[in-house]
Amino acid sequence: MSCFAEEWKNFVPGKWSDNINVRDFIQCNYTLYTGDESFLADATEATKKLWAQVMELSEKERAAGGVLDMDTKVVSTITSHGAGYLDKELEQIVGFQTDKPFKRSLQPFGGIRMAQAACHENGYEVDEEVTKIFTEYRKTHNQGVFDAYSPEMKLARKSAIITGLPDAYGRGRIIGDYRRVALYGVDRLIEDKQQQLATAPVRMTAKNIQLREELSDQIKALHELKKLGAIYGCDISKPAKNAKEAIQWLYFGYLAAVKEQNGAAMSLGRTSTFIDIYIQRDLELGIITEEQAQEYIDHFIMKLRLVKFARTPEYNELFSGDPTWVTESIGGVNIDGKPLVTKTSFRYLHTLDNLGPAPEPNLTVLWSVNLPQKFKEYCAKMSIRTSSIQYENDDLMRVIHGDDYAIACCVSSMRVGKEMQFFGARANLAKCLLYAINGGVDERLKIQVAPKYRAVEGDYLDYDDVMEKYDQMMSWLAELYVNTLNVIHYMHDKYSYERLQMALHDREVKRYFATGIAGLSVVADSLSAIKYAKVKCIRDEDGIVVDYEVEGDFPKYGNNDDRVDSIAVDIVEKFMEKIKRHHTYRDSVPTMSILTITSNVVYGKKTGNTPDGRKIGVPLAPGANPMYGRDTHGAAASLSSVAKLPFKHAQDGISNTFSIVPNALGKDGLSMIEELDFDLNMTEEELKKAAADVQ
Amino acid sequence: MSCFAEEWKNFVPGKWSDNINVRDFIQCNYTLYTGDESFLADATEATKKLWAQVMELSEKERAAGGVLDMDTKVVSTITSHGAGYLDKELEQIVGFQTDKPFKRSLQPFGGIRMAQAACHENGYEVDEEVTKIFTEYRKTHNQGVFDAYSPEMKLARKSAIITGLPDAYGRGRIIGDYRRVALYGVDRLIEDKQQQLATAPVRMTAKNIQLREELSDQIKALHELKKLGAIYGCDISKPAKNAKEAIQWLYFGYLAAVKEQNGAAMSLGRTSTFIDIYIQRDLELGIITEEQAQEYIDHFIMKLRLVKFARTPEYNELFSGDPTWVTESIGGVNIDGKPLVTKTSFRYLHTLDNLGPAPEPNLTVLWSVNLPQKFKEYCAKMSIRTSSIQYENDDLMRVIHGDDYAIACCVSSMRVGKEMQFFGARANLAKCLLYAINGGVDERLKIQVAPKYRAVEGDYLDYDDVMEKYDQMMSWLAELYVNTLNVIHYMHDKYSYERLQMALHDREVKRYFATGIAGLSVVADSLSAIKYAKVKCIRDEDGIVVDYEVEGDFPKYGNNDDRVDSIAVDIVEKFMEKIKRHHTYRDSVPTMSILTITSNVVYGKKTGNTPDGRKIGVPLAPGANPMYGRDTHGAAASLSSVAKLPFKHAQDGISNTFSIVPNALGKDGLSMIEELDFDLNMTEEELKKAAADVQ
Repeated sequence: MSCFAEEWKNFVPGKWSDNINVRDFIQCNYTLYTGDESFLADATEATKKLWAQVMELSEKERAAGGVLDMDTKVVSTITSHGAGYLDKELEQIVGFQTDKPFKRSLQPFGGIRMAQAACHENGYEVDEEVTKIFTEYRKTHNQGVFDAYSPEMKLARKSAIITGLPDAYGRGRIIGDYRRVALYGVDRLIEDKQQQLATAPVRMTAKNIQLREELSDQIKALHELKKLGAIYGCDISKPAKNAKEAIQWLYFGYLAAVKEQNGAAMSLGRTSTFIDIYIQRDLELGIITEEQAQEYIDHFIMKLRLVKFARTPEYNELFSGDPTWVTESIGGVNIDGKPLVTKTSFRYLHTLDNLGPAPEPNLTVLWSVNLPQKFKEYCAKMSIRTSSIQYENDDLMRVIHGDDYAIACCVSSMRVGKEMQFFGARANLAKCLLYAINGGVDERLKIQVAPKYRAVEGDYLDYDDVMEKYDQMMSWLAELYVNTLNVIHYMHDKYSYERLQMALHDREVKRYFATGIAGLSVVADSLSAIKYAKVKCIRDEDGIVVDYEVEGDFPKYGNNDDRVDSIAVDIVEKFMEKIKRHHTYRDSVPTMSILTITSNVVYGKKTGNTPDGRKIGVPLAPGANPMYGRDTHGAAASLSSVAKLPFKHAQDGISNTFSIVPNALGKDGLSMIEELDFDLNMTEEELKKAAADVQ
Repeated sequence: MSCFAEEWKNFVPGKWSDNINVRDFIQCNYTLYTGDESFLADATEATKKLWAQVMELSEKERAAGGVLDMDTKVVSTITSHGAGYLDKELEQIVGFQTDKPFKRSLQPFGGIRMAQAACHENGYEVDEEVTKIFTEYRKTHNQGVFDAYSPEMKLARKSAIITGLPDAYGRGRIIGDYRRVALYGVDRLIEDKQQQLATAPVRMTAKNIQLREELSDQIKALHELKKLGAIYGCDISKPAKNAKEAIQWLYFGYLAAVKEQNGAAMSLGRTSTFIDIYIQRDLELGIITEEQAQEYIDHFIMKLRLVKFARTPEYNELFSGDPTWVTESIGGVNIDGKPLVTKTSFRYLHTLDNLGPAPEPNLTVLWSVNLPQKFKEYCAKMSIRTSSIQYENDDLMRVIHGDDYAIACCVSSMRVGKEMQFFGARANLAKCLLYAINGGVDERLKIQVAPKYRAVEGDYLDYDDVMEKYDQMMSWLAELYVNTLNVIHYMHDKYSYERLQMALHDREVKRYFATGIAGLSVVADSLSAIKYAKVKCIRDEDGIVVDYEVEGDFPKYGNNDDRVDSIAVDIVEKFMEKIKRHHTYRDSVPTMSILTITSNVVYGKKTGNTPDGRKIGVPLAPGANPMYGRDTHGAAASLSSVAKLPFKHAQDGISNTFSIVPNALGKDGLSMIEELDFDLNMTEEELKKAAADVQ
């Protein structure tokens, strides 16, 4: 398409008008907004009515035990359902995962047993014929993984030294560039993909065959996406011609993704500034009012809040709820230093007022020292009022990913439509330390999980001895972990390929192989205790060390004390280097995260007593956090310790869950955020928990 | 299992009793028979009754247009059907592909469209739900292949320069070692496979993941195989304890294979001498009589004759009928020079008397100069009487494959349970020559199929010029052909893996990557005409050479004339070398066959006029045959020409369809066969067509 589409009237042409290039479209067309929030419009009557309806349904859902309705027979595909509405007359943006709101779809491709369990635990039963199909005829991702797992992998999974693996549900962490649907229309995207296939390598190695098949599957998914639009009466084959259509087209892209995939994190991308271009045009043309613009956004956000998956109680326990991580990345600065803040950045955050606070979509501000002051102030204000905004360091990530990346899940950054991630959950380094001490015997299950390396002897732990053993055990763990993830991602591609999401990517994508660690602060403190205090081993009748007595004090991670902080840094670097030593699926680039927000609680349950004095069952600290209560030198010292962790070795993100009382933030909350900017060169998960204190 | 199973009483132990090793069992236990056929028993009353019933059903099937009944709803799996019988009381060996004889099963895994077409063309329609499942939820082999094919591949397929590709039906040519089921029982085989999985590599490369998943699938298939036995009231978890069970267990293995796979050739292996060991033991124990022994064999062979698949008319046209290639390899000599002929070798051939002649199972005698004289005489006698025996050169193949190989399909030799083949159909070298002359334009479709290499200019063809162009065009064809097959076998493994057949193989199998050529004699004669006569080009209005005028005579392949025979040899070597230059799927070993028995007719239809004077539509010669009527120097000269073709470069087999009047064979037919032994170092397809003249 070398012609300038009619729907693009008034847009500034550029590279984007000849090739798929949403970033270029944004850069050519967006209108920076440096003003304050005074222009924002309140919720319309329609919005209020619809939201009341949602609240009522939510109430019913809670009353019904967490699930209001479930599909048990219709397998969710892009086109599996007829149209569903809250109130067709009032809704500006339409589309549900099934034929009605709050009805959870049936997604067996990741695993039929998981689908059955999710139904069963909620009082439903999957149709027998569907079970037969996905048992006898159609293998699932879950079955594929378990067909290839080694006994050691199953054991490591059972003992939870490797944990939270996406081997029975969708891996998520892939962000389709849903904006492409709006900007180009599906026909142009199909044409582009056909061109990609026509020029794909024909030397038929497994790698090239896989690429060709995937491109074919992507094209099929795009055809289905058009049908999904048609089901709701929209012809999305052509570009969107106004703001409402742009939001609707974009949402259809996202909706198709969540109809196909139930990934742990189905993130949205970075859409607000893109959409702002359409709203700005419509406003300038006098087609819509600010009230209408806000209504579109409110209704769109409302839809995103209603994305639901059928999950099992175990899943919900791990994630402390029923999250979907519909993360939307807002703000940031472009690579020329111009902020990417628009009025729609405000409009997105304003939904927290118009609809009330909510954890979804996960509104994430890409924070930069160069964001407009008024926007910073508004963010701080909204954070204090709603505790519903996540902040991440744009100045850090922009260096690596440029200015059109977004966050998947909590902290995983990737260029939209150009990079994706193989999600890898976590290795429990605290447990690994216990394995090192006990020669591979699990301290809880009392079975040999890791190789029978030599266990620690004697009554007291010796730092050099433990470190040597720990190093060896981490080598074992890193190799096993990478191999386990290789199986998972091979099978996910084979049995549950994200064809629609990948259809909204370039052909050549960069793939990150995301690993993660849990228990970092426990490890740092334990090793510090061994080094600087005396740690006595308490053994059970079989000689397994099951507890520790710490004699004397020792430096603790979280107090800006290099003696222990350097241990944490060292462990991060070491483990990442061990990870890198191994073959990763599809030439993916290994990365690591130090990230848990909620699952650290479950991990703690499965980790025995540790040499730092932590008792069995006590939650590990989330992410890169110091252990609760041990950061006794104040917030700045605590944050400084975390800030030492090398982003280079944990590029998939470092999270720090940080709770403070509101007045610590100063009058407008901004001073503290500014301080963070200067003090921390790290990504962070912030402020979410301050809410309770505010009330 | 280190213990000697109770069922093995009276067998001589050996390596086979500790490890899966059927060859060793045979070598330790078989009884060479050098006598004549006088011991053979006639058909029993039960056999006659059953066969009459089969004849009656065959009659009805013909009357119904070729198909008597078809499954349209039940997808064929190992355990998909209840028991089916002709006459339960009379049948010694039981089991049908569906719940009744002559009812064809529904096998959509290779391709739902092919399954639909096969039904539709025969007046049936596949159930809508099944169509939906295999369109929306479960991709088929066929769909996978077409998702990855390049446009060039589709074009080469359409123009039929590459042809007969197994991209819409099962590739076949894999022989499970069905004897293992009888000798070891399924439990032991499962145990063995579990051990293989437990010791499989855990470095999770795609290759190792694939192996591990396949082993898991094989184990599942073995569990289902046990269930199949149970459906017919047999506990096949344990070894067979007598001859009847041995045949029955073995047949269940085969039956499970044809319930899962509809490969072009579903061959049986090399079973007669194995089964003879059981019969011999029972006879010596006085448990059975010769009549009973023959009845078992007759009923077994009857079952093999009733293997049927749902095919399309195009498929049947290509193969000139509805063949299944249930090839059974009989005789041969062991690597110590002792013939592997037993009484049961006779009993198998005797079914041609007891049940009458039939093309299936494809009884193939592995011929050696060292076969017992009486067996040779019996073979010759039965060949003359029934025209239903195929001969292949054991002395040649034994060098490569040892003494426990078998023939898959017509000529493809492989060690049973240790080697398998990726079947590759054929490249049409005659058409390739026309492409060389016309610069890649198809002479029939008048479209550019191959690259736009320089076409031949001028009115007369110059040998060196044509050869240079032909060499280049063969390079193009070889690369495209190999890549096309890579796609096919990748997808076949992905969407239609032969788990049961491979469960009856060792873990580490040698894989042959079988390519094939068609039109060899046309190429040889054409190049000979260009070299030794004058060949004038006739061009159409677009300058495309569409016909040739040959001025003068030229040596023709099939007359033991080295001037042209050397061209044939050269082409075979050249093309094989070009094939070998490319990456082949799963480290498979490229081989080549010069084999067509029937499909040469279809290939001829799709090949334009050739420089040897052959006209468009005239069939190519089958396999390595000289063109019909051109071998004017007698049978010996004709055979000598064929014999020059290097088996080393066409290890997948060279076929020569050779029709002679019976009295040319001498009184007992043996003199001619003996002569073949000495004259031909080649595999051959023989005598099949002499039947009509005998009557």
